[in-house]
Amino acid sequence: MEPAPADRLEQQIEEVKGLLAKHGLLESVARRQQTPRSGLLEEMQRRQNLVELEMRLRTFHPADIASILESIPPDDRVLVWGQLKPALASAALVEVSEPVREALIGSTSAERLFAILSELDADDLRYLSASVPEPLLTELAAKFDAQDRSWVEQSRSYPEGSTARLMTQDVLSLHAPQTAGDAVAGVRQLGSLPAHTDRLFVVDARNLLVGAVPLGILLVADPAADVSSLMDPDIRRFHPYDPAEEVATAFERYDLLSAPVVDDRGKLIGRVTADSVMDFIRASSENNVLGLAGLRNAEDLFAPVLDSARNRWPWLAVNLATAFIASRIIGSFEGTIQQLVPLAALMPIVASVGGNTGNQTVALVVRALALDQLKIGSAWHLLRKELTVGLLNGALWGTLVGLFAMVVYHSAPLGLVMTSAVLLNLINAAVVGVLVPLALSVAGRDPAQGSSVVLTFATDSMGFFLFLGLAHTFLL
Amino acid sequence: MEPAPADRLEQQIEEVKGLLAKHGLLESVARRQQTPRSGLLEEMQRRQNLVELEMRLRTFHPADIASILESIPPDDRVLVWGQLKPALASAALVEVSEPVREALIGSTSAERLFAILSELDADDLRYLSASVPEPLLTELAAKFDAQDRSWVEQSRSYPEGSTARLMTQDVLSLHAPQTAGDAVAGVRQLGSLPAHTDRLFVVDARNLLVGAVPLGILLVADPAADVSSLMDPDIRRFHPYDPAEEVATAFERYDLLSAPVVDDRGKLIGRVTADSVMDFIRASSENNVLGLAGLRNAEDLFAPVLDSARNRWPWLAVNLATAFIASRIIGSFEGTIQQLVPLAALMPIVASVGGNTGNQTVALVVRALALDQLKIGSAWHLLRKELTVGLLNGALWGTLVGLFAMVVYHSAPLGLVMTSAVLLNLINAAVVGVLVPLALSVAGRDPAQGSSVVLTFATDSMGFFLFLGLAHTFLL
Repeated sequence: MEPAPADRLEQQIEEVKGLLAKHGLLESVARRQQTPRSGLLEEMQRRQNLVELEMRLRTFHPADIASILESIPPDDRVLVWGQLKPALASAALVEVSEPVREALIGSTSAERLFAILSELDADDLRYLSASVPEPLLTELAAKFDAQDRSWVEQSRSYPEGSTARLMTQDVLSLHAPQTAGDAVAGVRQLGSLPAHTDRLFVVDARNLLVGAVPLGILLVADPAADVSSLMDPDIRRFHPYDPAEEVATAFERYDLLSAPVVDDRGKLIGRVTADSVMDFIRASSENNVLGLAGLRNAEDLFAPVLDSARNRWPWLAVNLATAFIASRIIGSFEGTIQQLVPLAALMPIVASVGGNTGNQTVALVVRALALDQLKIGSAWHLLRKELTVGLLNGALWGTLVGLFAMVVYHSAPLGLVMTSAVLLNLINAAVVGVLVPLALSVAGRDPAQGSSVVLTFATDSMGFFLFLGLAHTFLL
Repeated sequence: MEPAPADRLEQQIEEVKGLLAKHGLLESVARRQQTPRSGLLEEMQRRQNLVELEMRLRTFHPADIASILESIPPDDRVLVWGQLKPALASAALVEVSEPVREALIGSTSAERLFAILSELDADDLRYLSASVPEPLLTELAAKFDAQDRSWVEQSRSYPEGSTARLMTQDVLSLHAPQTAGDAVAGVRQLGSLPAHTDRLFVVDARNLLVGAVPLGILLVADPAADVSSLMDPDIRRFHPYDPAEEVATAFERYDLLSAPVVDDRGKLIGRVTADSVMDFIRASSENNVLGLAGLRNAEDLFAPVLDSARNRWPWLAVNLATAFIASRIIGSFEGTIQQLVPLAALMPIVASVGGNTGNQTVALVVRALALDQLKIGSAWHLLRKELTVGLLNGALWGTLVGLFAMVVYHSAPLGLVMTSAVLLNLINAAVVGVLVPLALSVAGRDPAQGSSVVLTFATDSMGFFLFLGLAHTFLL
């Protein structure tokens, strides 16, 4: 069950696909040959193939099965998912991405789902809780002891993106008056440490967090030494309601592998480990990619068409509304275009160059905000810089665009109008590109969501308006 | 020197800014009052302020200093950087982002730079090597022992994005014939473990990697037990030339905190730890944001204007070339537009809706490729799905757009042409949006770089062509 190297994973996927193809072939053969006798033979062969698939899957790491489930189409997915024994299915369910998880849970019978989810411990069940129907969650939680039960049941009360969502309660703590020898003896009695333990947190008699001892220190310590003399008392701690983004920044910045979570009184209630932070960083960064493109949610690549289409509607609708406005701006210059038709061919260039440079600025600002590099106090300096870049690029590319217009339409005034419009639109793009994501961030919104749509609106509308307005004033 | 909570970091930045402002104020006062006497007093006050700044900075964590350096404008940056003692400066230099690091190194005198870099160990110097002038690197490496020297000197031979760039040689290994007691005694003799050690790698007599023992296991093990009986022999290992992306995927997928790096013969030569993988994941994900916006490199927010402008040129140039082509397509329909000017006002809508939906598809595909969810074998299924989504959205939004045209221009045929053009352009967007990033990925290129520019070209040009062509055929 060891993890597979990348090329072996590809190979495993090919293998599973081979088994699936064999199965699919037989399915279609079975459908064609409807005579009962050969139907029976086919059915036996089909079962044989499914058994083969199950046996093969059993040798895979759950994370690899998750990866396979994510990268095969729905029909195959149902087949693979159906062959997994509950223990393996539950482990894979923890690893798959959220949209795929919801699709799998949605396609599983209540009975089988109960069997699968019963395999999970409180921490994992809590992790999945958002995708599990409420009554089933309550039923599953009932088998845990009181502490675990309340742990699972309160899971939904923490908002998405909070530290609590990254946290595990699987934490082994030492007590301040212990010696290193006591501590090691205690761990030995337990037999093993919770996964991803790089240091043990130390609490006092009231369970208040007072420090942490790295395992390496404990390993080399004199057994008679007090735990309190070995521990680092100054450790970064988090509260369940802290934004997870803050935890991620701290892990990145201070190279943490684990951090304690405490309640309002300072009692140790859990732990965040590097593996879940890593997943969070990847997910939140990749969501910037989606947000900038105007998508609200991550999508299962093989999601039902209607779900996918819907996911794209909100920003499409906004984009369309802004396109209508831009269209009306052009419409108000129809008389001008009637007199000078080349304007129609040239105006998209002004909008396009503006949109392009503006989106570069938006991307830089969104990235800087994600990396916590941009403080409000430096915004003015950044705006001034982007304006200068806009001026410089505007003069340079504006001249090029103007030359293009001049050469194609043999008109120097037309070229000058083009140049001026591009220059002004790049300045417009710089201002909007800096201010919109910044304003969203200050307002506590995700700067990736919507910045690009607003920017495109500004550069399109203003681009058309500037160009056609200048042309109307100076060329007619 | 403990890490600062987020709000305290903001506070620290404010403090430093306060000190800087005080300094700036005095600078300007000093410039105004040119009388030598008060000049001397001002000078003393100025020095006093710098001392205050230096003392305050000394209490900060190097990572916090790095964060401050990243988020203040160049003038202030020079001032803060200049007040750091070499040891703290070197630690901060390791933590800052690459563009800022290069700016700092570029602004530092050779003498001071040597003093700062001399504070680094071989691993950290190697990490910075890409930003350090070659002769200086050789000079610095000379003070190390032979092994460290070759380690630093060969650092440039590994390509960017290779596993070697994430790796540290700071690894403590156990020997297979040892007992757990021997192992612990050995570690104790060293006094401490290398940073971020969650498990110790086990080598045989020829230094070939044979397994790993988690610290927790070693801690609870019977001292008489053989290391080889405690170890997990089946561990994921990497080679220095493996793509770092592969390491990151493995860390995410199998929840690793460290992984061994071996040479071609299987000898243990180093280790990759979760902290550097976390930084890599963040950086490579955020680079998708930049790539999609048409930026080649990350930028120091406060980089010199010319550097920033240049960073945006390549894709701007491509974008401009494609805009010229789109413009010529419109130009070839000038006769049509002359006869029906509303076409000019409506055509950007067709292009805009196509570009918007296409970029959504591009973002989804780029993200899926980054998360390793999209295998070439499933591309056909994905394409079919995106086509269906395009058809559905095309019918829906195309109708809306058609109604808009009909209402504004009182012409049902014009509305029908709009609807058809939007529908066809969304199908075009789906095909290009799936195939372009996929083709780039298959060709071994970064799918984020350029996909969006090609997509916009396709949806603009085809949008104009489809709409004007349909209008020419059916409306005139």
